[in-house]
Amino acid sequence: MYSVTVRDHIMIAHSLKGQVFGPAQRLHGATYVVDVELKRPDLDSDGIVVDIGRAGEALRLALADLNYQNLDQVPGLAGRNTTTEFLARLVFDRIVAAIARGDLGPGARGIEQIRVTLHESHVASASYEGPVGGSA
Amino acid sequence: MYSVTVRDHIMIAHSLKGQVFGPAQRLHGATYVVDVELKRPDLDSDGIVVDIGRAGEALRLALADLNYQNLDQVPGLAGRNTTTEFLARLVFDRIVAAIARGDLGPGARGIEQIRVTLHESHVASASYEGPVGGSA
Amino acid sequence: MYSVTVRDHIMIAHSLKGQVFGPAQRLHGATYVVDVELKRPDLDSDGIVVDIGRAGEALRLALADLNYQNLDQVPGLAGRNTTTEFLARLVFDRIVAAIARGDLGPGARGIEQIRVTLHESHVASASYEGPVGGSA
Amino acid sequence: MYSVTVRDHIMIAHSLKGQVFGPAQRLHGATYVVDVELKRPDLDSDGIVVDIGRAGEALRLALADLNYQNLDQVPGLAGRNTTTEFLARLVFDRIVAAIARGDLGPGARGIEQIRVTLHESHVASASYEGPVGGSA
Amino acid sequence: MYSVTVRDHIMIAHSLKGQVFGPAQRLHGATYVVDVELKRPDLDSDGIVVDIGRAGEALRLALADLNYQNLDQVPGLAGRNTTTEFLARLVFDRIVAAIARGDLGPGARGIEQIRVTLHESHVASASYEGPVGGSA
Amino acid sequence: MYSVTVRDHIMIAHSLKGQVFGPAQRLHGATYVVDVELKRPDLDSDGIVVDIGRAGEALRLALADLNYQNLDQVPGLAGRNTTTEFLARLVFDRIVAAIARGDLGPGARGIEQIRVTLHESHVASASYEGPVGGSA
Repeated sequence: MYSVTVRDHIMIAHSLKGQVFGPAQRLHGATYVVDVELKRPDLDSDGIVVDIGRAGEALRLALADLNYQNLDQVPGLAGRNTTTEFLARLVFDRIVAAIARGDLGPGARGIEQIRVTLHESHVASASYEGPVGGSA
Repeated sequence: MYSVTVRDHIMIAHSLKGQVFGPAQRLHGATYVVDVELKRPDLDSDGIVVDIGRAGEALRLALADLNYQNLDQVPGLAGRNTTTEFLARLVFDRIVAAIARGDLGPGARGIEQIRVTLHESHVASASYEGPVGGSA
Repeated sequence: MYSVTVRDHIMIAHSLKGQVFGPAQRLHGATYVVDVELKRPDLDSDGIVVDIGRAGEALRLALADLNYQNLDQVPGLAGRNTTTEFLARLVFDRIVAAIARGDLGPGARGIEQIRVTLHESHVASASYEGPVGGSA
Repeated sequence: MYSVTVRDHIMIAHSLKGQVFGPAQRLHGATYVVDVELKRPDLDSDGIVVDIGRAGEALRLALADLNYQNLDQVPGLAGRNTTTEFLARLVFDRIVAAIARGDLGPGARGIEQIRVTLHESHVASASYEGPVGGSA
Repeated sequence: MYSVTVRDHIMIAHSLKGQVFGPAQRLHGATYVVDVELKRPDLDSDGIVVDIGRAGEALRLALADLNYQNLDQVPGLAGRNTTTEFLARLVFDRIVAAIARGDLGPGARGIEQIRVTLHESHVASASYEGPVGGSA
Repeated sequence: MYSVTVRDHIMIAHSLKGQVFGPAQRLHGATYVVDVELKRPDLDSDGIVVDIGRAGEALRLALADLNYQNLDQVPGLAGRNTTTEFLARLVFDRIVAAIARGDLGPGARGIEQIRVTLHESHVASASYEGPVGGSA
């Protein structure tokens, strides 16, 4: 299996609901350094997994409406617990949709599996990995 | 598949038995930066893989009796070759036991797969990955 | 000149006032990975710059009332522009005060210079460096 | 599953053919920091995946005829698109061959799976992973 | 002294003239991950060293005509030994000129010292540091 | 001021004497990832600070008799507190001596300042910096 990984980041505020979150129940924030790994069994006719420029741009767009926001007030996220795990899945779903729309080019439809990792500090991260065509 | 990764470290002395280890047959030591990745197919009712605070504490406890020790003299390890691979498995087994005891919370019983990686330098690491309920 | 560096991190929300900040004028947040480097020309009688355990604990305490907070509402910070640069200086001043109080041990009074760096992402950081006994 | 990872690097020039590569169609270059992860279900009689010294040496040899070269003129590569993905597979094939030759020692024949990752910058990488005995 | 650091990267081909360079006398290449640290004794009226967005853009522009190039054929560089040290100085001079032109904003004229570091691999880097108004 | 930095590592055992060291009074160990930064105001006639190959080899030699050793029993170190700070100075002194012997080439005599940093984990390091020709 081949893969290509691209990296970007966002800086957001949010709060988490539930006793398990302790002090993170308060409004606080995070820098998420986001890695998206795109996997496929064979390379396309150019010898690549995907146009890395387009992959980076798709990641930037997938993050754009989250960046410099308070996630507690972002439409569609308000009322949700925007845990690092939840956000990893959100970015995964958006990249899957971008591939389906052709944003990563026609060859990108050969991508079968995607792994999204959000690094929230030098000691903690969360990820979601699944097939492009279905659930995990 | 979702995952959460936490990091801690230990500083130990040991020696390795067998010609293959060359100069590492002498008493020497290592800093191991330890990553534990906990994986499960679905999030719990709080929208998380595991309480990250509890995961970090479980890792600290799994490492506590190794830290600042000469592994050649730690009960249960004396006479064993405490290679990086062996230690990755040891930490794996201890985290599995911690989950079974409920140390990571009742929701953590949904964790199905664990990967433990020990970085011994900027150019070398070893890992063990397996299912929580059985062998690899 | 000798130095010792310790690392910790905080996760905060804040907003920045001024057109120069563009989208960062909105309420957002950051993970700051904080490095404190303590410098002195000679080692103490134990052969160290400072007790590294005490240094790490002093850093943790210097960050404690900021962690998991909205800095726009932290007493003493409300109304200030809590830029990364400003926060580097704030941590510097707090470490200087901790040394003066003896929190890092009597030997730590030999520390002459401190550098505090806050990494806000994989591509950006800010720092403040100055002598312990005065301004930069 | 156990694994051991070793790291080395090369510095090469090349050009890529195809409109998708944009400015990378020009002769340019890259530092590739190369990680090779060797995986097997059980440890050998010394308690290791592989002699890490031999693994590092095998990686060095696998990279030797590429290092400080213009890949457009390396025999066997001229006329190929030496994308990061392609090179990950090339290193994979060479490590598989090295194991078959016994370069990593007789115990290394227990290695079942290999993952090769080439980091081309702080924001991009590519990898190839497959079984030792066949294709992906 | 306050500072802000921004990071970007380029991928170039070049060759180096002189026996001291050994195999690097051949046409090869490198990824340079470039850090620019901008230093000043006091913050501007917005509480910053410099608009970090403008600093990042100035760095991108300082690198633009080098990226994806064979430096042996770049006008102004042909015939020069484009060592990592030389390139660190080149980027330094370009950032100094950008500040003088006002590209980083009027407040950036308070910047007194700049350090440019080029990381060429995980084990080697070079830097140039000097005052904005003169030579080192 | 120009500089070049090279990196290597050692894996050692030792114990530290003094109550301040707490559990580190026991025999334990560390991986030290060692960075040596060599500084000079002007480049030599080849356009470099130093032959980076020779610098890396000099660092390897400076570390050779420490690697895979119990420092408590290394001649010349037995009875000393081999703190990270102490070892940074030891490596500094050895690199200074190597330059004086001509091990880094005749041009390396232009090096005026050296900084040695030992990273003992992902959260702690120590360094020593001083002029080549004298004490700090």
